Amino acid sequence: MDQVTIENCDEKVQLLPAINDDYGGVVVELKEHMESDVFLTLLKTSMSQWTSQGKKGVWIKLPIHLVNLVETTVKEGFWYHHAERDYLMLVNWIPKTTSTIPLNASHRVGVGAIVLNDKREMLVVQEKSGFSRGTGIWKIPTGIVEVGEDISEGVVREVKEETGIDTEFIEVLAFRQCHKVFFGKSDLFFVCMMRPLSFDIQIQELEIEAAQWMPLEEVEAQPFAQKPDSLMNHIMKLCKAKVEKNYSGFTPHPVTSFLSDSPNYIYFNRKDLN
Amino acid sequence: MDQVTIENCDEKVQLLPAINDDYGGVVVELKEHMESDVFLTLLKTSMSQWTSQGKKGVWIKLPIHLVNLVETTVKEGFWYHHAERDYLMLVNWIPKTTSTIPLNASHRVGVGAIVLNDKREMLVVQEKSGFSRGTGIWKIPTGIVEVGEDISEGVVREVKEETGIDTEFIEVLAFRQCHKVFFGKSDLFFVCMMRPLSFDIQIQELEIEAAQWMPLEEVEAQPFAQKPDSLMNHIMKLCKAKVEKNYSGFTPHPVTSFLSDSPNYIYFNRKDLN
Repeated sequence: MDQVTIENCDEKVQLLPAINDDYGGVVVELKEHMESDVFLTLLKTSMSQWTSQGKKGVWIKLPIHLVNLVETTVKEGFWYHHAERDYLMLVNWIPKTTSTIPLNASHRVGVGAIVLNDKREMLVVQEKSGFSRGTGIWKIPTGIVEVGEDISEGVVREVKEETGIDTEFIEVLAFRQCHKVFFGKSDLFFVCMMRPLSFDIQIQELEIEAAQWMPLEEVEAQPFAQKPDSLMNHIMKLCKAKVEKNYSGFTPHPVTSFLSDSPNYIYFNRKDLN
Repeated sequence: MDQVTIENCDEKVQLLPAINDDYGGVVVELKEHMESDVFLTLLKTSMSQWTSQGKKGVWIKLPIHLVNLVETTVKEGFWYHHAERDYLMLVNWIPKTTSTIPLNASHRVGVGAIVLNDKREMLVVQEKSGFSRGTGIWKIPTGIVEVGEDISEGVVREVKEETGIDTEFIEVLAFRQCHKVFFGKSDLFFVCMMRPLSFDIQIQELEIEAAQWMPLEEVEAQPFAQKPDSLMNHIMKLCKAKVEKNYSGFTPHPVTSFLSDSPNYIYFNRKDLN
């Protein structure tokens, strides 16, 4: 049902279907095809109704097959909030007060895996694209965590995909935040200590040029790892501190949340807490 | 200039203006008004050209004032990649191979501030909205980090905005990841230890109901903080471990990056590294 009829001062008014949110606003999620002139009439009537009801934020979610309604929505004063492959979310703010519309997702989450075998060799790769392409640089396996994926899962998946090696997540040794890395968005990169569960390398041809187990000292000796303030220099120091000096990173523990029903994890320095 | 003419086999062909990206694709960023029929012709010709050149990803960035071109772009096979308030990014993948189009931003980054004065009192607030509204719960000041903002800056800003208290960032004690918290996106929440630089509370009327310095034991005694697996229970334990047991969190250090020219920070356990 893509429109609703309500009783209003003894006359029937056609409105867009909307549900109230927890912040005094309404959310409209259209699903079925609608002509833009029909939509325009419903939108104008609905906006009047919501304004008289003192509603604040108005959200309109348009699946990509309703792209014919985007122009009309924008011309009625809405702006883009966010988009995913199959929908566009538009928003409007009715009151005269400052908008409290929440911000869009701002960060991509990356992971890097430190995987050492018992000969003090590190699992390293050469990539087919990105900054290190064609440079001969050997780096740790890295990747991007997917929406809905735990950091500790994402890093296991990426190591497996790139190198074929099975690993177990141990802890986060460090994280790095940086900005304006893609489309103006920011990036959080988690350096993870992993325990290998298998040792035979099978590279992923699409992204990886080569992979090997390389002695720690050789990895460290590469010029780009020698640069004192570089990320790789820190990664090597953290790796050696973990192996030689009992460095404590953050380990995950299940935690309950008001925000989500699924199990969540809090990562902290367990050694120091106990 | 929103179109280009190139020489092609002795005839002039009108194409959309495009720049090559580092991954074998092209990026079109339109700025000036264009009728959709003119755009359609240029897009079809350009796609043929790019296909014959072996281009991979095709990105079209449409500012919101060019909303009239969105429908045409989608009907030519493009889909949404992401959107911000003032533009929509659409994308297409020409080859038959699997798309390597990068993922959209997946996480929102939140911060929570542990601020203690020298009487072992904690800075706590009651919020006007969200899960704790109307519950009488006293919680730590929290907020969302903005795009381009360091975690260590964002938490100082949020404490100042909500309570008027100036603080200095000390370290990240822990972080919590959870999923599907808003529009299907994930959330990373950093628990930060702060040192207060001022003590007179001035609450922000829009979001905050009340704020006070409350004895640690009283904060801890609240039922929601007593729940063993709750985030607040962990926060209180971490706070006491920091004050009483020399708990080490992660502190930020500048680091260089291939990804960004601006200064970045890596956060790690400095005590254990040295």
